[in-house]
Amino acid sequence: MKRIRSDLIIENGTVLTVDENDSIIERGAIAISDGKIVGVDREDAINGKFSAAKRLDAKGGIIMPGLINTHTHLAMSLLRGIADDVSLDSWLKNYIFPLEEQFMNKDSVYVGSLLSCAEMALSGTTTFCDMYFFEKEVGRAAEKIGMRAVIGEGIVASGKNEEQIWQKKKELTTELMKKFNRSELISIGVKPHSPYTCSRKILQEAKKFSKENGLLYVIHLAETEKEFSDFKKSAEMTPTQYLEKLDVLDNSTLAAHCVWMEDGDLDIFKKHEVKISHCPQSNMKLGSGVAPIVKFLREGIVVSLGTDGAASNNTLDMFSEMKTAALLAKVNNHEPQAFSAKEAVRMATIKGAEALRKENEIGSLEVDKKADVIVVGLDKPHLTPIYDYYSHLVYCANGSDVKTSIVNGGVVMSDRKIKNADLADIIKKANFIATKIKKGAPARTT
Amino acid sequence: MKRIRSDLIIENGTVLTVDENDSIIERGAIAISDGKIVGVDREDAINGKFSAAKRLDAKGGIIMPGLINTHTHLAMSLLRGIADDVSLDSWLKNYIFPLEEQFMNKDSVYVGSLLSCAEMALSGTTTFCDMYFFEKEVGRAAEKIGMRAVIGEGIVASGKNEEQIWQKKKELTTELMKKFNRSELISIGVKPHSPYTCSRKILQEAKKFSKENGLLYVIHLAETEKEFSDFKKSAEMTPTQYLEKLDVLDNSTLAAHCVWMEDGDLDIFKKHEVKISHCPQSNMKLGSGVAPIVKFLREGIVVSLGTDGAASNNTLDMFSEMKTAALLAKVNNHEPQAFSAKEAVRMATIKGAEALRKENEIGSLEVDKKADVIVVGLDKPHLTPIYDYYSHLVYCANGSDVKTSIVNGGVVMSDRKIKNADLADIIKKANFIATKIKKGAPARTT
Repeated sequence: MKRIRSDLIIENGTVLTVDENDSIIERGAIAISDGKIVGVDREDAINGKFSAAKRLDAKGGIIMPGLINTHTHLAMSLLRGIADDVSLDSWLKNYIFPLEEQFMNKDSVYVGSLLSCAEMALSGTTTFCDMYFFEKEVGRAAEKIGMRAVIGEGIVASGKNEEQIWQKKKELTTELMKKFNRSELISIGVKPHSPYTCSRKILQEAKKFSKENGLLYVIHLAETEKEFSDFKKSAEMTPTQYLEKLDVLDNSTLAAHCVWMEDGDLDIFKKHEVKISHCPQSNMKLGSGVAPIVKFLREGIVVSLGTDGAASNNTLDMFSEMKTAALLAKVNNHEPQAFSAKEAVRMATIKGAEALRKENEIGSLEVDKKADVIVVGLDKPHLTPIYDYYSHLVYCANGSDVKTSIVNGGVVMSDRKIKNADLADIIKKANFIATKIKKGAPARTT
Repeated sequence: MKRIRSDLIIENGTVLTVDENDSIIERGAIAISDGKIVGVDREDAINGKFSAAKRLDAKGGIIMPGLINTHTHLAMSLLRGIADDVSLDSWLKNYIFPLEEQFMNKDSVYVGSLLSCAEMALSGTTTFCDMYFFEKEVGRAAEKIGMRAVIGEGIVASGKNEEQIWQKKKELTTELMKKFNRSELISIGVKPHSPYTCSRKILQEAKKFSKENGLLYVIHLAETEKEFSDFKKSAEMTPTQYLEKLDVLDNSTLAAHCVWMEDGDLDIFKKHEVKISHCPQSNMKLGSGVAPIVKFLREGIVVSLGTDGAASNNTLDMFSEMKTAALLAKVNNHEPQAFSAKEAVRMATIKGAEALRKENEIGSLEVDKKADVIVVGLDKPHLTPIYDYYSHLVYCANGSDVKTSIVNGGVVMSDRKIKNADLADIIKKANFIATKIKKGAPARTT
């Protein structure tokens, strides 16, 4: 029998499919053709069926879906660590907002996004969902490194200029849609910042626009106690109830954080099929609180995982985020069985795909899905011995253990080297911008 | 002027001394001679004063004290991930205890300890404090890899055989003292497992013995709610009050975990100068709870950092542990300024030294201290740009960013390679033991 020609076979590894049966294939392989997965099977079965233009030896490692980071502000990597361990209020008002105002422009957003895309490719993330300014630059950076992304302009619009700001943002979003119309990698979202930084009218206009154009609607929600108690005081409802009242919640809505939620809010999420981006490290570092993810999961709500920006984390390492998500859920529920390593892996893969409404394209290794694949090496003391693959990925591995990252069938990182860009040059440029930022940053007095 | 000859100069880096002024020396260097630090200064000053037999280029990285892990059970790396996400009770009774009984012997403890020492050397830990069985093998493994350690037999003795067990453990401890008498690296501790697994008499005998021989007294304390409520019920006091009543608390006592503590317990610790080994990842993963470290620090109690065994973590990466310690303290206190990155670094270095009563020997880079030094590389996207060294070490770095580990002036890891042992052979042997353990492990039904 003649074998089918494929572009690439990844072999000599354990395939963690993250399909609906959580199938694990030891001595497995996958075949890729035209950016898609065409075969997932035991190595001998794959080699019996497919020939390959290229082969990649996983060297006994784990072959798994690329990780999906559903909440980022990529360019903020340029502000990584500039003001840690200060109060949230001071962090925002004395550091982040003024520095963004002064230093974040088209060029710096491009450099910061390149830096972050490189970091993600090196740590096994293949798709991200970003909200910031100058998002065209974020899209350009993603295409340059070869990452999949849902990009969208962050919208802060409330008060007298709100209509003007919204028109401008609508224009920018329309431009993004045009520019990336044919992109295999980039899709567009509408991203009002939060219920407290956008007026009722803008939140609704944004939803209307996102519906008309079939775009994801992404918003920060119920992140801090202040947001929660402010809404309770001013509107006598929770932030979630407020958004429901505005009729902006539906199955294309992705809400980030969701720390301050009443039980009734979970019913609302369930009813409208709202998805969550859980950001445990950011929530811990900023002292925001602990999102009740075990409850969310019990209600069948889709919970994905996000790192948030690198100014509040301070990395984009989804392995570290998986570990923290699991540990935090366990201690918060006072029982180790409250949350499993398998759930953490699903959160960072297939659930991320569902949150971005891309579950038919990415998030698992299955025939006909896009080939977003990573290989995690296991030949290190901290990964020896191995009894359980999920446990190892969540509790032992870190981003530096990823050996290969593939997006849409194309290798973006191989043997710890970025394939499509000059990393040394990106680092040099980021450091140059940081030198300027350092001079502009207020002295640490808080 | 003739320069003083030194064995090694580490140059071209930023020296984080962790001395009492937290001095940071940019373009700094250190000079090492006969296993000790003989110079810490700006690079030009060091080179003006010292010549060197060898030079190590830190390549713009951070030169800092080696990390000190004050609570380990090294050989448990062989059980890494064998039974995660089950209840603590089932974890202990159905998995850990029977598997230890069946598979932990002289040979496996040696191999497991070698594996863990390699993992630690690769992730920047230079000193550890271990409690397990067959501790002579742990000491041998530490000497082989070149690590500094406080080793000691775990003592579980309560009930009819307790006196017999204690005599045997005393014998073993005496043997350890003899065997490692001249060791530059190994010192010995007396290590009763906990107030609930040792009788009152044994706890006191062990204290007497440790005092007579000037040895550290190490014990698990107030780890779980069950331990706490059992003591409250049976003795009408907290586990800490119980130990005070037994008169076994003093400044040579190191208590691991200390999660379930009443305010009065803190006064007891303060009064007797008891030191703490904080193990946040283990406490989270086993659902034990959150140790009130911000309160401890406010009271001036010495808090060091431990990973616990790799079966409940599941790595020995102290960078990950520092991050978790900081994030957990922040979220638990609802404020980001509750705990700083600098405090986390001190906890993993000089406070670790104090916990082991070695603060005059290790824990900071100062002239006349032993040369336990690591170099952390910064030339990666997740460490770019840099505004604050402490923040980077705690929130961004992971163990894989360590480029060199030096203990007592000797290089134990260089460019991610273990210097004094065949790592591939250690991994092979660990995997072989794991194959046998796998066959003996109960099927996962819980």
